[in-house]
Amino acid sequence: MPELKNINIGLMGLGTVGGGVYKLIERRQEEIEKKTGTHIQISKVLVRNLDKERPGVPASVLTDRWEDILEDDDIDIVVEVTGGIEPARTRIIQALNAGKNVVTANKDLIAEYGAELFETADNNGKDFLFEAAVAGGIPIIRPLKECLAGNEITEVMGIVNGTTNYILTRMSEDGMDFDEALAIAAELGYAEADPTADIEGYDAGRKVAIMASLAFHSHVTFADVDIEGITKLTAKDIKFAENFGKVIKLLGIAKNTDEGIEASVHPVLIDRNHPLASVRDAFNAVFVHGDAVDDAMFYGRGAGEFPTASAVTGDIIEAARNIASGCTGRISCAAYRDIPVKPADEVKDKYFLRIKAADRPGVMAGVTGVLGNNQISITQVVQTAAVDGEAEMVIMTDEVRRKHFNDALIILNEMSSVRKICSVIRVY
Amino acid sequence: MPELKNINIGLMGLGTVGGGVYKLIERRQEEIEKKTGTHIQISKVLVRNLDKERPGVPASVLTDRWEDILEDDDIDIVVEVTGGIEPARTRIIQALNAGKNVVTANKDLIAEYGAELFETADNNGKDFLFEAAVAGGIPIIRPLKECLAGNEITEVMGIVNGTTNYILTRMSEDGMDFDEALAIAAELGYAEADPTADIEGYDAGRKVAIMASLAFHSHVTFADVDIEGITKLTAKDIKFAENFGKVIKLLGIAKNTDEGIEASVHPVLIDRNHPLASVRDAFNAVFVHGDAVDDAMFYGRGAGEFPTASAVTGDIIEAARNIASGCTGRISCAAYRDIPVKPADEVKDKYFLRIKAADRPGVMAGVTGVLGNNQISITQVVQTAAVDGEAEMVIMTDEVRRKHFNDALIILNEMSSVRKICSVIRVY
Repeated sequence: MPELKNINIGLMGLGTVGGGVYKLIERRQEEIEKKTGTHIQISKVLVRNLDKERPGVPASVLTDRWEDILEDDDIDIVVEVTGGIEPARTRIIQALNAGKNVVTANKDLIAEYGAELFETADNNGKDFLFEAAVAGGIPIIRPLKECLAGNEITEVMGIVNGTTNYILTRMSEDGMDFDEALAIAAELGYAEADPTADIEGYDAGRKVAIMASLAFHSHVTFADVDIEGITKLTAKDIKFAENFGKVIKLLGIAKNTDEGIEASVHPVLIDRNHPLASVRDAFNAVFVHGDAVDDAMFYGRGAGEFPTASAVTGDIIEAARNIASGCTGRISCAAYRDIPVKPADEVKDKYFLRIKAADRPGVMAGVTGVLGNNQISITQVVQTAAVDGEAEMVIMTDEVRRKHFNDALIILNEMSSVRKICSVIRVY
Repeated sequence: MPELKNINIGLMGLGTVGGGVYKLIERRQEEIEKKTGTHIQISKVLVRNLDKERPGVPASVLTDRWEDILEDDDIDIVVEVTGGIEPARTRIIQALNAGKNVVTANKDLIAEYGAELFETADNNGKDFLFEAAVAGGIPIIRPLKECLAGNEITEVMGIVNGTTNYILTRMSEDGMDFDEALAIAAELGYAEADPTADIEGYDAGRKVAIMASLAFHSHVTFADVDIEGITKLTAKDIKFAENFGKVIKLLGIAKNTDEGIEASVHPVLIDRNHPLASVRDAFNAVFVHGDAVDDAMFYGRGAGEFPTASAVTGDIIEAARNIASGCTGRISCAAYRDIPVKPADEVKDKYFLRIKAADRPGVMAGVTGVLGNNQISITQVVQTAAVDGEAEMVIMTDEVRRKHFNDALIILNEMSSVRKICSVIRVY
């Protein structure tokens, strides 16, 4: 048996994910030797507070100085699980330039500075791996870069935020309102103390930017993603959706169309029979459409200590194999196309529109007339029985450019017979 | 820009899959250059009949002599899509020994001779890739070998045969009987002229053997898989299952338990809410359970010209990248454990049992008494109204070792009050 190559890891961060990675690498060390022919160990861990108790982690590996990792020539792989833009960005670039491979779970960073990081990795011939940055434990980055590399991918979309999917599941299955469901999500640890990034769709938006960049080989950043969260959704919308045979999910959608890339996060009505409709609770799932593979879907846990550590450890093993074979940097993530991102106003969608209107003759004709004048075809209309002189109208439209739809909304808003535009939700 | 490395492919077989691979490689050539820095071309194609018209494939690349590929030192990758054991086995070994990398879709071969092929590849430091052999276009081999490599995988299971899933979908959704659904599947091209390998579960069994070997790093062959097909299922069973909130799917299941590996293919009742329940028509889906990732699922098209070509082309791109980086053979598939396969008699399952019995007092007590005497706990019993002095009983059991269950069946069969044991189906 050949001698095992020693591979040392510098771990940045020992929070939930970092702790999971530490434990998993310890637990799998012997197996990893058999799989990779290398002996992997976490030789240094960068933490903020050296005085804090870290059960299971020897004090000898802890440091609060980044230089202890950066300047340690025995460290082959830096694993960054601290999150946020700085100092992560500077340190990752320093690590790559110092000839280290990097594994990260940092979606904020890649969604903004991906191009710079990919280029730095390429220039240094090092691995820069980030399976954990999108959909936690679910393999999606490697399938996009490798397994499906023979495809022209035209769409990537899915449920990429577990917190909001948990909230929507409670609203849908238990008839809860948004606030109630959010409170339960917080209680169970699915929602953070400040849930903004999740419920406003920012977290999903970052993942969409990363997936779109890789799928379309073009440069898509967080700022390119058109984002709407779930805070305005009501139990009533979900009930109405059900009556149309639909469920409401927060979908991240990236499409490569003839007129450019569309990248968005929105609540969307999807068919009850669509595989994504059965993705419940905190689970994630990503759909990929390629010209050869047709539809493929990847499902699993999008967050959590061990699911995320699973993805990080898979990347560490990949880097270790590449180090052992002398072929780090073998796959580039750099964009080789330059496809424009379509202006949001030009994007076509189908819409679900719920309106409170006066209950008098001619109102329906007025509302549908405004839609017709703005090039909006209607596929279904339901009007509920009037209460206190007000009726509720639910309208499903055909595909329409957003600017035309918004023009119609402005006019509807000004009509005296229209009391309130209660909801506007996209339909997949 | 560095000069592109030329990579030549020898393609064995130009049937449905081979034709798809040829077209896809042609269509993607320029993209593949950007992704891999290599210029890939199919320089020779081995066919049986040189006289047959092959639209789109120049006659100059065709040959009916295997030696023309084997002895061509310019050929770096041999792609085998002929199927069957021989001559594929001999030729793949010859190719690997001649220093070529091999990509194949041949599940029959790997399920039987995987160990030999993996070893030959390792000895030669060459890639032996077979993503297309399991679940067609769905990435599952690479996720098991790479993305989920940090996990101790304890279970892999799923719908890995599209023909039978199509038949079961028609039986379930349209109330068809097996023969009728099979006829439609044949008409649509989902079932072959001789559908035996599909409907008897052999095809699924081969995929289970391959997945179990990779997931558990042990050697599991086709002969180790306990197999039952779907030919005995009736529309009535499916109706009864529905009444219990279940659907019937043909599942391939591989588990690594404390007492050894279980590997099987059986019709199984699964919960209507299980993600696999919504896998319809000819789609496939594979569930993986790992200690870190928890549950992950991979869904898509398990067969067909382009989905399969997608997987083969992904492997070709992988081999091309490894050739360009000088690191072929970087990941071994060889088993490093030797876990025994559990005897089928020792496997524990829950069962659904449908019996026709005489409609007289004491029969139910007799039947349930036999089960109880054989260590079988009952979780649910339904008895239908009697017709012509016969009643139908449906019993759902708790987990029981197969030998105890079979002992009970023998006794039930001999009871005069039991007219017929109509169905015995496992419950997940």
